[in-house]
Amino acid sequence: MTWLDLPADHPFGLGNLPYGVFSTEADPERRVGVRVGDLVLDLARAAAAAGYPSGGAWSAPSLNPFLAQGPDAWSSGRAWLTEVLTDAAYRGVVERHLHPLGQVTLHLPIVVGDYVDYYASAHHAANVGKIFRPDSPALPVNWKHLPIGYHGRSGTVVVSGTDFHRPSGQRKGPQDPAPVFGPSIRLDIEAELGFVVGGATAMGERVSVDGSAAHLFGVVVLNDWSARDIQAWEYVPLGPYLGKSFATSISAWVTPMAALQAARIDLPREEGDPEVLPYLRGTGTGATGSGGTAAGLDVHLEVAVNGTVVTRPEYRGMYWSPAQMLAHMTVNGASLRDGDLFGSGTISGPSPRERGSFLELSWGGTEPFALADGTIRTYLEDGDEVVVTAWAPGLDGSRIGLGEVAGRVLPTT
Amino acid sequence: MTWLDLPADHPFGLGNLPYGVFSTEADPERRVGVRVGDLVLDLARAAAAAGYPSGGAWSAPSLNPFLAQGPDAWSSGRAWLTEVLTDAAYRGVVERHLHPLGQVTLHLPIVVGDYVDYYASAHHAANVGKIFRPDSPALPVNWKHLPIGYHGRSGTVVVSGTDFHRPSGQRKGPQDPAPVFGPSIRLDIEAELGFVVGGATAMGERVSVDGSAAHLFGVVVLNDWSARDIQAWEYVPLGPYLGKSFATSISAWVTPMAALQAARIDLPREEGDPEVLPYLRGTGTGATGSGGTAAGLDVHLEVAVNGTVVTRPEYRGMYWSPAQMLAHMTVNGASLRDGDLFGSGTISGPSPRERGSFLELSWGGTEPFALADGTIRTYLEDGDEVVVTAWAPGLDGSRIGLGEVAGRVLPTT
Repeated sequence: MTWLDLPADHPFGLGNLPYGVFSTEADPERRVGVRVGDLVLDLARAAAAAGYPSGGAWSAPSLNPFLAQGPDAWSSGRAWLTEVLTDAAYRGVVERHLHPLGQVTLHLPIVVGDYVDYYASAHHAANVGKIFRPDSPALPVNWKHLPIGYHGRSGTVVVSGTDFHRPSGQRKGPQDPAPVFGPSIRLDIEAELGFVVGGATAMGERVSVDGSAAHLFGVVVLNDWSARDIQAWEYVPLGPYLGKSFATSISAWVTPMAALQAARIDLPREEGDPEVLPYLRGTGTGATGSGGTAAGLDVHLEVAVNGTVVTRPEYRGMYWSPAQMLAHMTVNGASLRDGDLFGSGTISGPSPRERGSFLELSWGGTEPFALADGTIRTYLEDGDEVVVTAWAPGLDGSRIGLGEVAGRVLPTT
Repeated sequence: MTWLDLPADHPFGLGNLPYGVFSTEADPERRVGVRVGDLVLDLARAAAAAGYPSGGAWSAPSLNPFLAQGPDAWSSGRAWLTEVLTDAAYRGVVERHLHPLGQVTLHLPIVVGDYVDYYASAHHAANVGKIFRPDSPALPVNWKHLPIGYHGRSGTVVVSGTDFHRPSGQRKGPQDPAPVFGPSIRLDIEAELGFVVGGATAMGERVSVDGSAAHLFGVVVLNDWSARDIQAWEYVPLGPYLGKSFATSISAWVTPMAALQAARIDLPREEGDPEVLPYLRGTGTGATGSGGTAAGLDVHLEVAVNGTVVTRPEYRGMYWSPAQMLAHMTVNGASLRDGDLFGSGTISGPSPRERGSFLELSWGGTEPFALADGTIRTYLEDGDEVVVTAWAPGLDGSRIGLGEVAGRVLPTT
């Protein structure tokens, strides 16, 4: 299949080909690379050497110029990559532009335009409802009619491996007469996928569910670090702000949606779920909005804290699909920019071992859980390192690796 | 005072000197200009001609490189400008770089980093509370302890004069069995000031109230267009999203904070207002957080709809100051980027004629009001043009004009 020395079942084989931004010690200029096996191909240089005329965008220090070129360029680039990595005739010109993964530095792959975070897991939303609002229905009344979302801070989106300081802020327990200030004592993770947008649109234009493929470039693994105590005190009535804005981590590799064709699945729907409004349906979509162009994704996540796997969330249970979230984002005429990023929201499944946050894993702090070193956790401690990894089914039983997003909590400043 | 033919009381005199980005028919390249009287000075060219060595940042198509240079550069630039516009010896080299205001095109002055909107008027927040949540206390319990804010969409911040399409979306009245989709029927304005940030910071760094002057570059007039029906249905529990993200308009001119020295006032505080936490206090600040480095601003606004002035909000009544909002934004370690923008939230005063939104002016749609042409309004109609203007006191009884932000509602797409 390929002239590279690459096992057929490698999770970063030719069926994957995720994009990132890297530099080397010898050449600290940031540029676009693609991961194949445990190597990184310097794309612009390989394209120049192999005579691919459209490789100029890959010399940029972010994916944004490539994102701007739109879906035809994404397809062409992927086809060209597959060709040069398959046809041994290209080996001579391409091989010299491969770098061992361990010898490159990976950077934030995109200049983030707007960052939106959704809340698309019914299991997560219901768990949060039960913990925080036990006297109300578990799901807000609007939840099954629209993908609830909000804008987050794009300036603090960081690449995997970036450590961050525990945030300080105001919190107020129910018994406290007034808020107190200090480091967050309920610092949490949110295991998510993030979707990278390309093909900018003008204000007033809408992207339909059917048209979303032209703007959904790829997927990252995302950890939406959250200070639950800060969030709980601030979020009524305008939503989360400082409880989220201190850091959001994404994986260095952006897996193209094209690599996830075998992972497309129907959306989960149950008897009694309301019919969604037409703009949230796609071609081939049933009355409950499942399947067709609004397809969900079968992606498996794993969250490790200091090396102990604490949960394995399944993306397959998410109620709203990436296409629906994108269609909703633009239905009011909001424009898209290359590099816009939206998160799925915490991925939680029906079982306790599929919960995507410490808030849920410790049930609001009431049920501590143990790590392999014998220490227990309700929320994150200083020094904790969290690694979220993900993979999806590829063709013929192979796996598509989505890489990892890692980060460590440093003491407050 | 100046060799220009400029009345001493001109609102764009030498005490003002706001920055913007412009182009001309003869030279469509966008570059930084400063407004003086009814002229625009091409800054980079004037600097080159007059031998000012730091003018390179002004040849950029946005203020961002100048914002990045920080407060010393802002002071030096203002001092140089004052000198060349005062000393007749410079007239020969500078005058040829002045363009009549009517002959330039004004553009968005900044590349917006993150856009945050606050909710800093107690009168507005209480009015909204009374209209939407009549059975609850008018102000949320957290409101006087922290400036409530949320992130908005920076990609749809547009310059004054940009028309936009009425947004469509989901809405659901209390009697509706399910949400319906269509053009917003409660399209509104929010008359605000916006604050432009410079001097980027690193993650983990905090900007104190006392240190805020090094990062607060200037002020714009801001209209945060809002679809109340979309917002009402979507905003629980994560805050406003599509009800706001379709368009936010700002004035073309950024008035430097340095021009607003005479407008600095104590913050309004009443008996019983809680003491704010130390990070929200500045030097020279009383127990209730008023005055000193946390000063408020005496800015007068006027909102005209199709030429009829419908309200005159007074910024003096705002509970939280720009310095406090900036300190709050960064207290969790969130970094700042050059071009970050934050809005004050709707400016409303205690009297009905100082209300900064149609929601309040029509009291939730129950009290229509008339325009000069005899038509009545509760919310915006297609074709309506809204112009928000603002001014502040300058030295010696002069006025500092803050310009205007204008926009027109086009039919939905």
